[in-house]
Amino acid sequence: MNTELNNTPHRRYNILTGEWILVSPHRTKRPWQGKTEDSKTEKKEKYDPSCYLCPGNTRASGDTNPDYKEPFTFVNDFSSLLPDSTEINFEKGLLKAESEKGICKVVCFSPDHSLTLPLMEEEDITKVIQMWKKEYEELGANDGINYVQIFENKGAIMGCSNPHPHGQIWSQSSIPTEILKKSAKFKEYWEENGTSLLGDYLEQELKAGERILEENEHFVALVPYWAVWPFEAMIVPKRHLQHIGQLNSEEEKAYARILKKLTIKYDNLFETSFPYSSGIHQIPTNGKEYPEWHFHMSFYPPLLRSATVKKFMVGYEMFAGPQRDITAEQAAKRLNELSGTHYLKKE
Amino acid sequence: MNTELNNTPHRRYNILTGEWILVSPHRTKRPWQGKTEDSKTEKKEKYDPSCYLCPGNTRASGDTNPDYKEPFTFVNDFSSLLPDSTEINFEKGLLKAESEKGICKVVCFSPDHSLTLPLMEEEDITKVIQMWKKEYEELGANDGINYVQIFENKGAIMGCSNPHPHGQIWSQSSIPTEILKKSAKFKEYWEENGTSLLGDYLEQELKAGERILEENEHFVALVPYWAVWPFEAMIVPKRHLQHIGQLNSEEEKAYARILKKLTIKYDNLFETSFPYSSGIHQIPTNGKEYPEWHFHMSFYPPLLRSATVKKFMVGYEMFAGPQRDITAEQAAKRLNELSGTHYLKKE
Ligand SMILES: O=P(O)(O)O[C@H]1O[C@H](CO)[C@@H](O)[C@H](O)[C@H]1O
Ligand SMILES: O=P(O)(O)O[C@H]1O[C@H](CO)[C@@H](O)[C@H](O)[C@H]1O
Repeated sequence: MNTELNNTPHRRYNILTGEWILVSPHRTKRPWQGKTEDSKTEKKEKYDPSCYLCPGNTRASGDTNPDYKEPFTFVNDFSSLLPDSTEINFEKGLLKAESEKGICKVVCFSPDHSLTLPLMEEEDITKVIQMWKKEYEELGANDGINYVQIFENKGAIMGCSNPHPHGQIWSQSSIPTEILKKSAKFKEYWEENGTSLLGDYLEQELKAGERILEENEHFVALVPYWAVWPFEAMIVPKRHLQHIGQLNSEEEKAYARILKKLTIKYDNLFETSFPYSSGIHQIPTNGKEYPEWHFHMSFYPPLLRSATVKKFMVGYEMFAGPQRDITAEQAAKRLNELSGTHYLKKE
Repeated sequence: MNTELNNTPHRRYNILTGEWILVSPHRTKRPWQGKTEDSKTEKKEKYDPSCYLCPGNTRASGDTNPDYKEPFTFVNDFSSLLPDSTEINFEKGLLKAESEKGICKVVCFSPDHSLTLPLMEEEDITKVIQMWKKEYEELGANDGINYVQIFENKGAIMGCSNPHPHGQIWSQSSIPTEILKKSAKFKEYWEENGTSLLGDYLEQELKAGERILEENEHFVALVPYWAVWPFEAMIVPKRHLQHIGQLNSEEEKAYARILKKLTIKYDNLFETSFPYSSGIHQIPTNGKEYPEWHFHMSFYPPLLRSATVKKFMVGYEMFAGPQRDITAEQAAKRLNELSGTHYLKKE
């Protein structure tokens, strides 16, 4: 790489969104006197009678969870989006609003309350991926569902209100802002080069090596050049796939393998159950073709220096744009120096 | 307003950025079992010997603060941007970076450690505004400083590491993402209508009334129709001004008055020192004319239901786009029902 960038404040360009991020590599020595987070990682039981996601328990809605053994999904009891809201198109002068339909679901990754993705078996993570595929396709097949956002908020610091291993899926009629930004960039590149923007990027990164975290036959995990969060990472399929529905069974397994490896590294970094929000970006389900798209999964983890000190995306970041201290290369290096065995599983 | 929007999930359009925000008004009854914040508001002393911002104290850099009596600024000891970094323009395949120059400053609002804006006298807030004007103009006059971002991170929850009343100014060569978005929208409207987008919006809001929080001769405070944060607010000058340098002395005072009134309401909402990030958006200092721009100050406060329960902008919000539960109108109504006297000053 250009080593001068290691010591010089600079901005990097995100090829997927067209936006810039400010990097201040000289500033890593700043002392921290601000807010620290709780990091008590209580040992959890396999079953918690008070958990509304555990098998057999009754939820706030009054519904009782089945005695599920594999990933289990249900419609969110407090859905942000509803399937049959009144159709409204409101425009009055400079005020503009429109109704939005959607279906919000919860995906329990495992019946075992004590687990998280890095602690689950590869076969069981594969089942989660298969469930994501199924939901992406089924939700997307609904009339008026044009986009399906699969995500996980992990850890209290990420607004997750229940430690039971689970994620969410919010599906809706309109195509969200972040997807529109990426669509535009994928398309631009496709029209100019006839190849996948992310595929070409992957090739370049594999040659460079310094931001690669894991690689297997079908997937690569890396810290993107334009990473915003301190230890942000991205999982990208080698095959030019538009959505997870296209994964074959070998790819599902390879995806599970790399997901486990990446999240083990994360937990090992600060020897804590590493908080993050992760999400899969893929093509809309509006029936249109998007040959330019290349699906990928991103991880936005807030921790910066320890289990208790996080990066705040506040004043400057909210009003101007994102800023980070350590570089993407430094983050990749730190993650790569860690053991591949989960810290709780070492003897 | 269209009252159906009160009960229907919908999206609203932000006329300043061109982006949408998802509103789920039916969801306010969701119970909260997740993370809560500390809200201990210790009574602070007027002088804290361990505070690096108090008059006469020595900072990490070794510099000693003067015995200041009025707003005091200095270059941040841990600046994210530096005035004289090496010039780099790096482009290699799909990697793109460039050096960024800048000057980061800290603005102490008052020598009194125990204060915050809502607890300061109007005359003293006026002096802060005059200091912002001076810094905007002086920093902006530097060769290669093309944009000046004035902001405040208030409260530990907003990444603020010191309770001494202070804000920051980061000034830099390139024009940040958020400013570019707003510039495009101001310009589009100006070219079509020959008037200020925000001026026309203000007029419409003053007629509607339901989102107005405060109004005086020169300024209006309101909850924008497209508010993202639960109690987000915006302060807008009535006169079509491009930057704070253009404020006359009557306007400076009116600005101080409305700033105090708004932040008192904020503190009274949950009877806590209300955390937020605030920032002023105004024209670049690159010497170009931007007649279409209308400067404004925004407040992004994270608290949702109490001094300890905040809104998390996580999974869905990061990967798709912002989401809120209470509507802008409900937020304005709650703020308007509060007393105008600070809760700590009631007998
Ligand atoms: O400069 P400070 O107050 O130490 O830092 C705070 O504000 C900065 C600007 O918004 C952020 O980059 C930091 O994450 C935050 O902790
Ligand atoms: O639905 P949950 O888990 O209660 O809520 C969490 O995730 C949502 C989607 O990212 C956010 O809108 C909420 O702020 C967050 O607390």
